[in-house]
Amino acid sequence: MEQANPAEVATARNRKVVLREYISRAPMEDDMLLVDGGAVPLRVPEGAAGPAVLVKNLYLSCDPYMRGRMRDNPNSYIPPFKPGSVIEGLGVARVVDSTHPGFSAGDIVSGMTGWEEYSLIQKPEQLNKIQQSDIPLSYHLGLLGMPGFTAYAGFYELCSPKKGEFVFVSAASGAVGQIVGQLAKLHGCYVVGSAGTNQKVELLKDKFGFDAAFNYKEEPDLTAALKRYFPEGIDIYFENVGGSMLDAVLVNMRVHGRIAVCGMVSQHGMTDPVGIHNLYYLVPKRIRMQGFIQSDYINLFPQFVDDMAKHYRDGKIVYVEDMSIGLENAPAAFVGLFSGENVGKQVVCVSQE
Amino acid sequence: MEQANPAEVATARNRKVVLREYISRAPMEDDMLLVDGGAVPLRVPEGAAGPAVLVKNLYLSCDPYMRGRMRDNPNSYIPPFKPGSVIEGLGVARVVDSTHPGFSAGDIVSGMTGWEEYSLIQKPEQLNKIQQSDIPLSYHLGLLGMPGFTAYAGFYELCSPKKGEFVFVSAASGAVGQIVGQLAKLHGCYVVGSAGTNQKVELLKDKFGFDAAFNYKEEPDLTAALKRYFPEGIDIYFENVGGSMLDAVLVNMRVHGRIAVCGMVSQHGMTDPVGIHNLYYLVPKRIRMQGFIQSDYINLFPQFVDDMAKHYRDGKIVYVEDMSIGLENAPAAFVGLFSGENVGKQVVCVSQE
Repeated sequence: MEQANPAEVATARNRKVVLREYISRAPMEDDMLLVDGGAVPLRVPEGAAGPAVLVKNLYLSCDPYMRGRMRDNPNSYIPPFKPGSVIEGLGVARVVDSTHPGFSAGDIVSGMTGWEEYSLIQKPEQLNKIQQSDIPLSYHLGLLGMPGFTAYAGFYELCSPKKGEFVFVSAASGAVGQIVGQLAKLHGCYVVGSAGTNQKVELLKDKFGFDAAFNYKEEPDLTAALKRYFPEGIDIYFENVGGSMLDAVLVNMRVHGRIAVCGMVSQHGMTDPVGIHNLYYLVPKRIRMQGFIQSDYINLFPQFVDDMAKHYRDGKIVYVEDMSIGLENAPAAFVGLFSGENVGKQVVCVSQE
Repeated sequence: MEQANPAEVATARNRKVVLREYISRAPMEDDMLLVDGGAVPLRVPEGAAGPAVLVKNLYLSCDPYMRGRMRDNPNSYIPPFKPGSVIEGLGVARVVDSTHPGFSAGDIVSGMTGWEEYSLIQKPEQLNKIQQSDIPLSYHLGLLGMPGFTAYAGFYELCSPKKGEFVFVSAASGAVGQIVGQLAKLHGCYVVGSAGTNQKVELLKDKFGFDAAFNYKEEPDLTAALKRYFPEGIDIYFENVGGSMLDAVLVNMRVHGRIAVCGMVSQHGMTDPVGIHNLYYLVPKRIRMQGFIQSDYINLFPQFVDDMAKHYRDGKIVYVEDMSIGLENAPAAFVGLFSGENVGKQVVCVSQE
């Protein structure tokens, strides 16, 4: 693919996934297009505005927050994608060429990149260099990356956990949920998770060590289901889904309970999302409910990486990812997040080297 | 009314307001009955279980939380009323007789009493003795009582207010709202309130010194209205109403905003309350939303009374109450809370002495 020519700069084919147009519903595969970006020179172009890095993308991360960037909302906390332009997302990549003194060809980095084979990173300061180790590279998109850090910051900074408390995690086998549940177990909590298939429920109990788990699609009455799993009520709810699950949780919360709102994946893309009817319970139960974004706690990131790598090496935290192979499968992998197709953290392997 | 007879204990007629039966909708006058409780001896009965106090009720408080006690919900944070029994509520009363060493005939007290002319208080420890002063006795049910303390604890303990921040108060002319708004002004905040009549809106601006106020019933689009009043967004929302106002507020909150949930009066008594559709905004705006009950902060009560009495005497806080005269008018006064009939804190005068 990389064609060397002594007289010229080597080039490579660069396929890209671009956003077709803004949407206001749940994303579909056809909202993204795989296009041939032509031949890309494998060198940082001369005359670039400043130091830049050209990378070959290895692994791309599919994350629910990206749905928000497909919406024409210039006031969002993160700017929308541009129709016709390449999708941006977190990834792990290998440096091919660099005019930035901090990076050299061959370095492995993680950070914001493009859904394409090669990306020119104009702000290389945002990249993190990865020290290769026994931990798989793709894990830097989950266990040791943004989702893992979301779990870590959300659980420790917002939930005020105490040993012996009752913790409920929705979307519990997902990138964030699986780590929240395991951190809560390590903290001495009683942990129950919900997921949307029996396979995921088994994973929660057998692999991640949750005390119990259930398939929410098989529960006609979520309020009754939670009462069964938490006869004494819920102290901490790590909220990933919204909708009727949140209503059922509110009824089952204990006095002085905490709800960390990480996301509400059931509400993404609905123009008329399901209304929440039980918010009044916040008052008699004195519940604290708080939304958060992991980047507000970024000063904790180095500590997080140390803690999590140690837990992983000690066998105290396990991690499951769902790997799609090939850039061409990235749109389907992303869309699958919103119907729960993925089992574990969804990533796309663009290239293994 | 109090008939002395040298050979017997004096007695008095004792009319009572009793709950007819449990309800699960908004309360109506007919849910309460005025009954003749017969002649009551004006002395603590011999053989009472422990020290007790017989009081003559002077002022009774009508508070929205009492609606919850009309529901058959044994799991509530406060036990339900009993059908056929006298309604309980906060009141100011004069001690007629006492077998408790802390109270003597003639003392003025506030605390939990009955909606009747005379009440036998079996747990007099919960009563507070009121030192009579230039502050009207009924104000101990509002400005210096539970609603004032709700405003004080909710604003200072939950809202983390900073000078210059933008504060919105719903049900702003009510018992709690009027005080929250004035405390926020004293703190250097910009304060807007909403109410349900133009008369109340004028009161907010002219009497309570809010920076602006509006009649929510005249706003077809609450989201647009709030955008007009808060072009830079809302930092703090003191939530008294719920429903569509909360949805409109969520859209208009600023990043890292705080919502103190004091009550949701629009949701009281509805079997199918209006759903909240915009909770997802908690995440990108990193909003902290917290329900509370004033009694959790009771250690601050003495400081509150000192602060508030000083503010009142210094003319820095004003107070408006809506006084109904006569026990027979208590049911209508209470029911009026839920349709906004009251202008200011609703109290009932049973007797002036």
